[in-house]
Amino acid sequence: MNNFTYYTPTKVVFGRGSEGQTGALVRERGCKKVLLHYGGGSAVRSGLLDRVKDSLREAGLEWTELGGALPNPRLSLVREGVDLCRREGVDFLLAVGGGSVIDSAKAMAYGVAEEGDVWDLYCGKRQARAALPVGAVLTIAAAGSEMSDSSVITNEDGWIKRGYSSDLCRPVFAVMNPELTMTLPVYQTACGCTDILMHTMERYFHPEAGMALTDSLAEALMRTVMESARVLTKEPENYEARAEVMWAGSLSHNGLTGCGAGGDWMTHKLEHELGGLYDVAHGAGLAAVWGSWARYVYRFCPERFARFAVHVLGLPAGADAEETALRGIGAMEDFYRELGMPTSLRELGVAPTEAELALLARKCAAACRGGGGAVRRLEEADLAAIYRMAL
Amino acid sequence: MNNFTYYTPTKVVFGRGSEGQTGALVRERGCKKVLLHYGGGSAVRSGLLDRVKDSLREAGLEWTELGGALPNPRLSLVREGVDLCRREGVDFLLAVGGGSVIDSAKAMAYGVAEEGDVWDLYCGKRQARAALPVGAVLTIAAAGSEMSDSSVITNEDGWIKRGYSSDLCRPVFAVMNPELTMTLPVYQTACGCTDILMHTMERYFHPEAGMALTDSLAEALMRTVMESARVLTKEPENYEARAEVMWAGSLSHNGLTGCGAGGDWMTHKLEHELGGLYDVAHGAGLAAVWGSWARYVYRFCPERFARFAVHVLGLPAGADAEETALRGIGAMEDFYRELGMPTSLRELGVAPTEAELALLARKCAAACRGGGGAVRRLEEADLAAIYRMAL
Repeated sequence: MNNFTYYTPTKVVFGRGSEGQTGALVRERGCKKVLLHYGGGSAVRSGLLDRVKDSLREAGLEWTELGGALPNPRLSLVREGVDLCRREGVDFLLAVGGGSVIDSAKAMAYGVAEEGDVWDLYCGKRQARAALPVGAVLTIAAAGSEMSDSSVITNEDGWIKRGYSSDLCRPVFAVMNPELTMTLPVYQTACGCTDILMHTMERYFHPEAGMALTDSLAEALMRTVMESARVLTKEPENYEARAEVMWAGSLSHNGLTGCGAGGDWMTHKLEHELGGLYDVAHGAGLAAVWGSWARYVYRFCPERFARFAVHVLGLPAGADAEETALRGIGAMEDFYRELGMPTSLRELGVAPTEAELALLARKCAAACRGGGGAVRRLEEADLAAIYRMAL
Repeated sequence: MNNFTYYTPTKVVFGRGSEGQTGALVRERGCKKVLLHYGGGSAVRSGLLDRVKDSLREAGLEWTELGGALPNPRLSLVREGVDLCRREGVDFLLAVGGGSVIDSAKAMAYGVAEEGDVWDLYCGKRQARAALPVGAVLTIAAAGSEMSDSSVITNEDGWIKRGYSSDLCRPVFAVMNPELTMTLPVYQTACGCTDILMHTMERYFHPEAGMALTDSLAEALMRTVMESARVLTKEPENYEARAEVMWAGSLSHNGLTGCGAGGDWMTHKLEHELGGLYDVAHGAGLAAVWGSWARYVYRFCPERFARFAVHVLGLPAGADAEETALRGIGAMEDFYRELGMPTSLRELGVAPTEAELALLARKCAAACRGGGGAVRRLEEADLAAIYRMAL
């Protein structure tokens, strides 16, 4: 069991109508001028943005707006937002949207609070020492950014996708109304559920002895997400299932399911390069490569993969851990297929050339400073092999 | 499913040697003068207090000391602490001990920050609007006060035990080294495990449809605590089991296991009166009355009691929910006996007279403003019947 720090200061206000409390939550922080940051038009069309503005108005707050955050949020918009915040004297960043919008707002929060290029943080040149407070009104259950310390930004110059983590940018509040996620298309919902599962799976797969409590909480969470994801493929407006998935999304990435344990994170690293190069949906990219990663590494901790098969997927334990592990990997891929998720790059709609395969592996290794992973340290040749297995 | 707010800002620093970070954690808050509050001599004898002082010294902090906090912490010491803090210009309350010491420090934190008698909060006369920051170095896994919003104080004038809850006094940090709990006697360890289980059981038993994720997390936590409690009866110095119980103690009372669900809390109310009148160990008092409470109310939500029997105690589900529920209650009492916990007032060492029984019920009803409970609203006559069943 490892020592750990657990820090989740985000105030979660969860349930129907909770967006009406947004203004009061900003005011609690003593802030006055908000940047209202959002993505495409759905928050406008649904009337959500107007309800949030009403709430800010009632709380006596001023705001300025910046829309246009894209999936795999772009550095150029972050820089535009930083300039806007400085010009307008913004002291609070309010993200209305999913993980991309929140990540974009987090990057702006760093950028406004300190001199220097914000990309320096993401490419590892320096550490952040300050950030404006960030709040979130969540509309997509997936990334867990509403309680996490991390954000991921794509630099269009080279299409480099990099993450940065610091407690400074954990949102001060997260408003979560499951009703706001009901209009999300089935494919996006499935992508979200995959991302949520992967945030716990990345923490769950490690070769060391972890913590029994963390393992059992993680397994409970994964089982609940899988059940609710199945419900949502048939009943996208099921409030209960939407709520389970939304809350699981936050708990899956706020640190809870990794306390005292390790963490692998190579599936995310593999996907980040796909997302940077092809702009695929993050959850779908994860599903497309996970099985290949798992088959490449399971031999290095077969007992844990076997435990996953039994405690999460409900398979009978076999006499041989490796055999149980392999059945578990297959069953997880079946589950992804059931949700309509890809389990290969071809199904993801991506057909890398030989040169692109090599580029993906090289960029991924570079992003891990040569290699990474807890189940098994993976270097450029391993990463190339996994991308190839995933074709 | 109910709407909910989840707010756990406490920074948890968990593991071996973590007490060495105490001073740095206080300094992070920008505070300068600490009240070092503790209980009896064990923190002194073990050398813990000296290590904490070293850490404060290294961080350049000043401190003043106040020991003597008792189980069922007393209002008179709280008042003494408030006077001391004002006299010495204390701006941070550091509790080194278990729940009683932390609760005592929380009450002082309210008392120092505002004019007026701090007991007014506990007897419901007013709400707190400010509190000094509180930090904890935990030495007993039980009360969950290190992450909770609540504290319980006993007023010696009438031996009235009352709780008060507010986010203002959630500790800003909790230092948790499982090694610090290893010398706790077997009986106190069992009391702690009982208290931890009860914090989740109070939230788990409710008649409404709750949240599947919350239920499954709660069940995972209860199973882990029961397993670890059994290990600790035989191996009190098992680090892994001490760590599981310690972390479960925090998660059991920080709100996580109640999200979207209800909560009953009548076992705690019943015990509070026992604790106020007889000064019994809190965990033992809970074990002594829980079975009687459960047998009195299970008919009003037999399905939930049956679910508890199956998912927590591992019993086979019977055709009849009431029958499964009763088997579960019996199995839980067997578990308490296995830990050496009482399952009646007699076993608790308490033999109330008729007049005392009436007094307990009257005080308990008064503490709930006439009645309380979610599984079944209980009034004075019900409470008297439960105390009598528990004899």
